[in-house]
Amino acid sequence: HMPSVSFRSALSLHTCTTLTLSSLSATRRGLPKPKMSENGVVPRAKVLTIDTMNPTVKNVEYAVRGPIVARAVELEKELSEGMKKPFAEVIKANIGDAHAMGQQPITFFRQVLALCSYPELLNDSTFPEDAKSRARRILQSCGGNSMGSYSASQGIDSVRQDVARYIERRDGGVPCDPDDIYLTTGASDGIMTMLKLLVCGEGVTRTGVMISIPQYPLYSAALAELGAVQINYYLNEEKCWSLDISELQRALDEARHHCNPRALCIINPGNPTGQVQSRECIEDVIRFAAKEGLFLMADEVYQDNVYADGCQFHSFKKVLFEMGPEYSDTVELASFHSTSKCYMGECGFRGGYMEIINMDDEVKAQLTKLVSVRLCPPVPGQALMDLVVNPPQPGEPSYDNFIKERTATLSALAEKAKLTEQILNTVHGISCNPVQGAMYSFPRIIIPEKAVKEATDKGQQPDMFYCMKMLEETGICLVPGSGFGQKDGTYHFRMTILPPRDKLQILLNKVKEFHQKFTKHYS
Amino acid sequence: HMPSVSFRSALSLHTCTTLTLSSLSATRRGLPKPKMSENGVVPRAKVLTIDTMNPTVKNVEYAVRGPIVARAVELEKELSEGMKKPFAEVIKANIGDAHAMGQQPITFFRQVLALCSYPELLNDSTFPEDAKSRARRILQSCGGNSMGSYSASQGIDSVRQDVARYIERRDGGVPCDPDDIYLTTGASDGIMTMLKLLVCGEGVTRTGVMISIPQYPLYSAALAELGAVQINYYLNEEKCWSLDISELQRALDEARHHCNPRALCIINPGNPTGQVQSRECIEDVIRFAAKEGLFLMADEVYQDNVYADGCQFHSFKKVLFEMGPEYSDTVELASFHSTSKCYMGECGFRGGYMEIINMDDEVKAQLTKLVSVRLCPPVPGQALMDLVVNPPQPGEPSYDNFIKERTATLSALAEKAKLTEQILNTVHGISCNPVQGAMYSFPRIIIPEKAVKEATDKGQQPDMFYCMKMLEETGICLVPGSGFGQKDGTYHFRMTILPPRDKLQILLNKVKEFHQKFTKHYS
Repeated sequence: HMPSVSFRSALSLHTCTTLTLSSLSATRRGLPKPKMSENGVVPRAKVLTIDTMNPTVKNVEYAVRGPIVARAVELEKELSEGMKKPFAEVIKANIGDAHAMGQQPITFFRQVLALCSYPELLNDSTFPEDAKSRARRILQSCGGNSMGSYSASQGIDSVRQDVARYIERRDGGVPCDPDDIYLTTGASDGIMTMLKLLVCGEGVTRTGVMISIPQYPLYSAALAELGAVQINYYLNEEKCWSLDISELQRALDEARHHCNPRALCIINPGNPTGQVQSRECIEDVIRFAAKEGLFLMADEVYQDNVYADGCQFHSFKKVLFEMGPEYSDTVELASFHSTSKCYMGECGFRGGYMEIINMDDEVKAQLTKLVSVRLCPPVPGQALMDLVVNPPQPGEPSYDNFIKERTATLSALAEKAKLTEQILNTVHGISCNPVQGAMYSFPRIIIPEKAVKEATDKGQQPDMFYCMKMLEETGICLVPGSGFGQKDGTYHFRMTILPPRDKLQILLNKVKEFHQKFTKHYS
Repeated sequence: HMPSVSFRSALSLHTCTTLTLSSLSATRRGLPKPKMSENGVVPRAKVLTIDTMNPTVKNVEYAVRGPIVARAVELEKELSEGMKKPFAEVIKANIGDAHAMGQQPITFFRQVLALCSYPELLNDSTFPEDAKSRARRILQSCGGNSMGSYSASQGIDSVRQDVARYIERRDGGVPCDPDDIYLTTGASDGIMTMLKLLVCGEGVTRTGVMISIPQYPLYSAALAELGAVQINYYLNEEKCWSLDISELQRALDEARHHCNPRALCIINPGNPTGQVQSRECIEDVIRFAAKEGLFLMADEVYQDNVYADGCQFHSFKKVLFEMGPEYSDTVELASFHSTSKCYMGECGFRGGYMEIINMDDEVKAQLTKLVSVRLCPPVPGQALMDLVVNPPQPGEPSYDNFIKERTATLSALAEKAKLTEQILNTVHGISCNPVQGAMYSFPRIIIPEKAVKEATDKGQQPDMFYCMKMLEETGICLVPGSGFGQKDGTYHFRMTILPPRDKLQILLNKVKEFHQKFTKHYS
């Protein structure tokens, strides 16, 4: 069971509060283990036990798929077995899984993937010519013209060229070298790989990595697995989750006493917080990284998910190059993108890329070697990444439908972002910043003292207690703020804005009702 | 450049001879770096340099995609630019990449993948009904009926059920629990994950892992990355690369002086050595693991690739269970399979699974947590794995064609295995064991003293020198034996048997000619 700990220790590397996992193995634990095998021989002790396993793995936490999701899966099973519940279905608003929430894939992308999977279809006259020509181009770049061949470990050449041209267009002509592009198995894989290169040293020389709080828990999980030091800087909830340079400085100065800070991670648009960084803020961050000698990692997987008026996505690469050679010749930057989010939402294909800027040549050779051990990213994911950066062009047969589908998805998301903020802010005890971008709201919730005490007595984080109760009573699966980190004494949850509009409205109203009931009960 | 070292130090964890990578970064190194940026400011030092990066990454080597392959890619480029070479094309016999060598995918598999990618095709009457019903079943298991959704981190439930049934059929009814199946991103991912769980301790308590020599270099690379101790046991080349328990014992006893041996890795059928283990040998290995308290890892990705008369694949799981509860209740085993090899050869999809037997429940919960951080294996790869374990059945419309295609591929491989052995053994100075299984020959080559000296003077492994010369003169890309490990003073290369029969014959004759010329030149 979860110990009662304050937020700061809950996020430190040597506790494991968010994910004790007892529920995951409950079924198997329930089976009594025979003390003696059938032939009467006392079994040998296990080689691999919780006490003899890799201790850094034990420190890993990943709340987005933690115990609350395990319970949601159990509830779904219980429902399907006819067990009575106070709800008819479980709604998983815990993870940015667009298609699972009913978002439709882009037709053109799927046509090309079908053509690449089964090239016989190139003779099928119902497929548009532009889909066929994209498929031919991808297949020509594959060994034996098959997606079943390994690609180069860095990714298919022609895909990396297309990525480079996409970045140049996106960044108003700032040049991009395909040799600086590495295709990845989703963005998570690229982030993990970059962190792996950076981590070294022991004790006070151990690599420290700055991450925002709240953060996407891939970062804390990766740092725990690598045994790196996590340096928390807090986003300013009062100013719409903006980033203050003074807070970066505070966090860095404190960290220098006990580790060697070497990298600064930024998520823009923010996950779980949904803010979109201003150009000025990005410039400040780049100046800070340059002054303090930090390697910059920019997680830009939500680059097309910007909804709020007056907000615009600025890539770190573009801003860096527009700041002139003092910065663009020196600041080391890795930026990450993915096929999983934006208007495409193709999480299951595990496609992504990273661009590396100003990386030392010898380190780059080591990076190339490191990725070669895993052979290559999945080729269908590479193909999909290619389509994302090279979609139908004006004049091509699929262009109009592509634009229609993309626009429909992005405007629906924009509408749902607004709806979420509006409804949540009508609830006394819930306050929600505007969802400027990405796919999540991260509202602050007031949890009554009596509920905090009951949770603490149970050894649970108060917001885990709150979310677990909500799941059991309403079937809504959210992730408690403690899984992402939050200021001590504040509580939040992350909720995706992905369910279809009607369903989202019902869901938000159920959250409202639950919160009112919960508050009343514990007041 | 490569230092002149004997084999043992070449395989040790703290040298990096196989892959110096100088060629990989040559282009960029060629560009002189400005000492001063355009505005006259002296650039800051890099945050991340070869001296300040993760030292365990530097120790990683992966010969299958090492400098010889980098040179092969350069040669291809030079050929395409019209440069004159003594050969018309580069033949990459370095990697088990079946489709790249012309092997055709199984039609049924690709039809189902196309249907899953673009479900509109479910209305297309040209697709067979069994392909459609498989596609419907896969899609029903996906969130929102889309392969673009994340799956459960352990893999799609229905796929894991199909894997379990496949294992039960394969192993003559030995039961398999779908809960013990983890789908993976190729076998490499599963092997890396298992090793990650196992590694801990420092100094003489540091985890040691036993691997065969010759080995598939994923193992040495993974152990280097994790900072584990590699324990080499030598296969017996004189006895067709068989495994002697006395050699396991020798290696283990020596290793106990300087580390904590905890796991034993077996590749069966063997890579790069192509042997197929006898049932007796597997029993002996299991008894050894039980007696010595070792976690068993069985790499069985070539389980359908068995060619030689009298040879048969026996899974470790089956043998373990047939040895009775003294073993089957206690010995911890992880076994690995993949979509990349056998008759399907679908490397690019990165599909695979592992089955874990007798794993401690708490450790298993940690494993489930660890894989959740990477979200899920690629869904198209999971779908493909499902088709491999649940192919067309007798009476279904696609059955006959499936059997025809599978048989054709496997018999062609069997024929090529024999051809390879035959032709290579006609060459004075080359001796090749029967290729009983897998996809590679690993012949021993005699390198004349004068050539060994010239290589050593250049700081190259003699077999790297030999293979590099062969590449430059014939366009044939092989991997030197030093990349896999070999007994001190012996030399080998690994060559796949994958090229089409005609091409393979030409290739083997070119190898013959080259070897004769090389031997003459250096005698």
